[in-house]
Amino acid sequence: MLMVDLILKKRAGEVLSKEEINFMINEYVKGNIPDYQMSAFLMAVYFQGMNEHESTALAIAMRDSGKVYDLSKIKGIKVDKHSTGGVGDKVTLVLGPMVAAVGAKFAKMSGRGLGHTGGTLDKLEAIKGFKLEQSEEDFIDLVSKHGLAVIGQSADITPADKLLYALRDVTGTVDSVPLIASSIMSKKLASGSDVIVLDVKYGSGAFMHTVKDAEKLAEVMVKIGNLAGKKMTAIITSMDEPLGHKIGNGLEVYESIETLSGKGPEDLVTVCVEIGAYLTVDAKIFKTLDEARIELKKTLTDGRALNKFREMVIAQKGDIKMIDNPKSFLTAKTHQIYASEPGYVESFLTTEIGTAARLLGAGRLTKDDILDLDVGVEVNKKIGDKVEKGDLLATIYHNDKGLEEAVKVLTNAIKIGQSKKGVKLIAKVIR
Amino acid sequence: MLMVDLILKKRAGEVLSKEEINFMINEYVKGNIPDYQMSAFLMAVYFQGMNEHESTALAIAMRDSGKVYDLSKIKGIKVDKHSTGGVGDKVTLVLGPMVAAVGAKFAKMSGRGLGHTGGTLDKLEAIKGFKLEQSEEDFIDLVSKHGLAVIGQSADITPADKLLYALRDVTGTVDSVPLIASSIMSKKLASGSDVIVLDVKYGSGAFMHTVKDAEKLAEVMVKIGNLAGKKMTAIITSMDEPLGHKIGNGLEVYESIETLSGKGPEDLVTVCVEIGAYLTVDAKIFKTLDEARIELKKTLTDGRALNKFREMVIAQKGDIKMIDNPKSFLTAKTHQIYASEPGYVESFLTTEIGTAARLLGAGRLTKDDILDLDVGVEVNKKIGDKVEKGDLLATIYHNDKGLEEAVKVLTNAIKIGQSKKGVKLIAKVIR
Repeated sequence: MLMVDLILKKRAGEVLSKEEINFMINEYVKGNIPDYQMSAFLMAVYFQGMNEHESTALAIAMRDSGKVYDLSKIKGIKVDKHSTGGVGDKVTLVLGPMVAAVGAKFAKMSGRGLGHTGGTLDKLEAIKGFKLEQSEEDFIDLVSKHGLAVIGQSADITPADKLLYALRDVTGTVDSVPLIASSIMSKKLASGSDVIVLDVKYGSGAFMHTVKDAEKLAEVMVKIGNLAGKKMTAIITSMDEPLGHKIGNGLEVYESIETLSGKGPEDLVTVCVEIGAYLTVDAKIFKTLDEARIELKKTLTDGRALNKFREMVIAQKGDIKMIDNPKSFLTAKTHQIYASEPGYVESFLTTEIGTAARLLGAGRLTKDDILDLDVGVEVNKKIGDKVEKGDLLATIYHNDKGLEEAVKVLTNAIKIGQSKKGVKLIAKVIR
Repeated sequence: MLMVDLILKKRAGEVLSKEEINFMINEYVKGNIPDYQMSAFLMAVYFQGMNEHESTALAIAMRDSGKVYDLSKIKGIKVDKHSTGGVGDKVTLVLGPMVAAVGAKFAKMSGRGLGHTGGTLDKLEAIKGFKLEQSEEDFIDLVSKHGLAVIGQSADITPADKLLYALRDVTGTVDSVPLIASSIMSKKLASGSDVIVLDVKYGSGAFMHTVKDAEKLAEVMVKIGNLAGKKMTAIITSMDEPLGHKIGNGLEVYESIETLSGKGPEDLVTVCVEIGAYLTVDAKIFKTLDEARIELKKTLTDGRALNKFREMVIAQKGDIKMIDNPKSFLTAKTHQIYASEPGYVESFLTTEIGTAARLLGAGRLTKDDILDLDVGVEVNKKIGDKVEKGDLLATIYHNDKGLEEAVKVLTNAIKIGQSKKGVKLIAKVIR
């Protein structure tokens, strides 16, 4: 088998076999296929696509290029979720305790990644002492004992994906649906859970701007998961505004604790309940989605979800005093942005809200950037809210750095108009 | 300027500026743009194409990456030709002396290249002692004195093209019209002639199988040449059968001498006269194509062309005794192939005829293969010829090596049927 023949085959729009894809990934990881052939192949995939069997073969080949977690020692059905990334997305921090509270085994590994705000790992690091690096044995132990654990992705997971992603990043081949889908799914498959819900974001703050594009990606990922033997659901949710109100690492932990205490914003609660419902029904904890929704909501008001969160923080060596005194996450200076005209919040440039948070130090542009876990942004009004002149629109939490520019970016990101608009929070579910 | 942005621009089907193309080629040659970015770019070009201004900018940037010949010291208008490559293509050996005989300055540099049979350089090496490596000064001197010289391409010509071609070869990006056109034209532009005729081959023995495909390539090359200030003509000629009868290095020198002595095959004479007519009219030697055709044909019968050929061989230190006794090129053993059924020669698998010659040792598969300059193939019948059972179809000139397989391949490459077909030798002229 010659790589140049596989390139020509894909260039012609033909379908590669599982054996051909395995050969390509294995030899690439070994260094026997050079980057210049792989990047030409990736560009051919950009133009010609891949069908679901090719995408699945690619995801599985990348999964098998590194460590694959075996969670069979954990009793029961293991559940996992993944978000394609959004602004203010703190779902994992709320969802994990909720589903663990009803008996699911929430085994979550997160990557760090670049972004407007840090990933789940950065958020949890706002809790002093929280231990993210755990051995496979300790991970299994934590999930078995407490029903949940959130840890950092092992460095030796899916090395093929890491190599390919780095190459795609510099060769203009990032935004190809089969490549995105197989990249995400390779890591999910390596993480070893049985039931997976994907939260695929659409809108002004998401990688996919339209429901249609998000749906395409979701469909491919669900197919890959199914073909690899997983119970899959994808839920297409809106990123036309931030999820909840707070954006920034410590700020999002604060809002998560509020939500786990029954005082959370409606959109965040809805997304957590919906994802949780599919996870727990597929984990055979509940018979129907409605039953699951009712029970999951209860965990937020009766203290069970908060207790699970506390249990996780203690087990993973986080400072429990911070959880019991959430104000400890609100130490930065504040700066208010007020409305200069009356009307309704019509839309957000959601990505720009993320940019404002990043400018303050909440997110990274390069992997060496050091985060300020205390800073961020709070949107005090959401789409459809009535606004009077002088109303508080947003609050900036800052430690001076980047304040001026963040104010400019944030002010420009909030669009006030004369019509009352709505947001389709959950646009579609794909199973 | 970032290479990844140029990749994305081309991927989106946008047009690159001259500055962007210059940046890309210059930085690539310096090693500042890695192969993996260039190959992704080339694949994007495969899918999105390039317009004539981009192709010209690319050809000129590649020309300027290395040595550019300055032929201004040669008095008069310098003429050059290029063939996209065919089986039995010995046009340079006949055309050069013809146009030099009427006063043109034929300044020809050839590459070696891979192929069924060797290139022009290999053919000339069948003449013992023939010196192909010449300094720029000596080249200018030879053309000035004798009106013609055929030399090996300088090693420091178009290094960017060499790098790009090597990369395209292993990344499935060879067969892109703008890339082929700018590669060929970069070398023609670096060779310094004023008038260029391109012999673009179509048919079963050519890279471009149809007239339409050959035409597309020809049009782009003519535009590049014109935009770079050259007088250009492209002539689309048939490779549905070998040109002339003989294929193989020494064999082709033999047939060239025959042709220069007025005893050449009709198709070879026609192609040489046509190319020569455009060259000499554009060089202002003749006023009309018809006048040029008549005068050029005369050079083959009145000894002037053969004399020019002899003059070149002597000037370039070749063994003139071989030219004066052409049988010296026919030293290999022969093997005859006879018709097993009556009918007409309907078609050839012309590339396979080339393959048969290569199997005998006349051509290279890798650049390290050593040629046997005495071996090759002669087709004794051409398309449209009537054949009786037992008639001689082809003669193999061999030194034992590869004989058995060559017989098989050659026999299969000659298709006898019941209808009398013709060949459109000159399908189109583009100026």
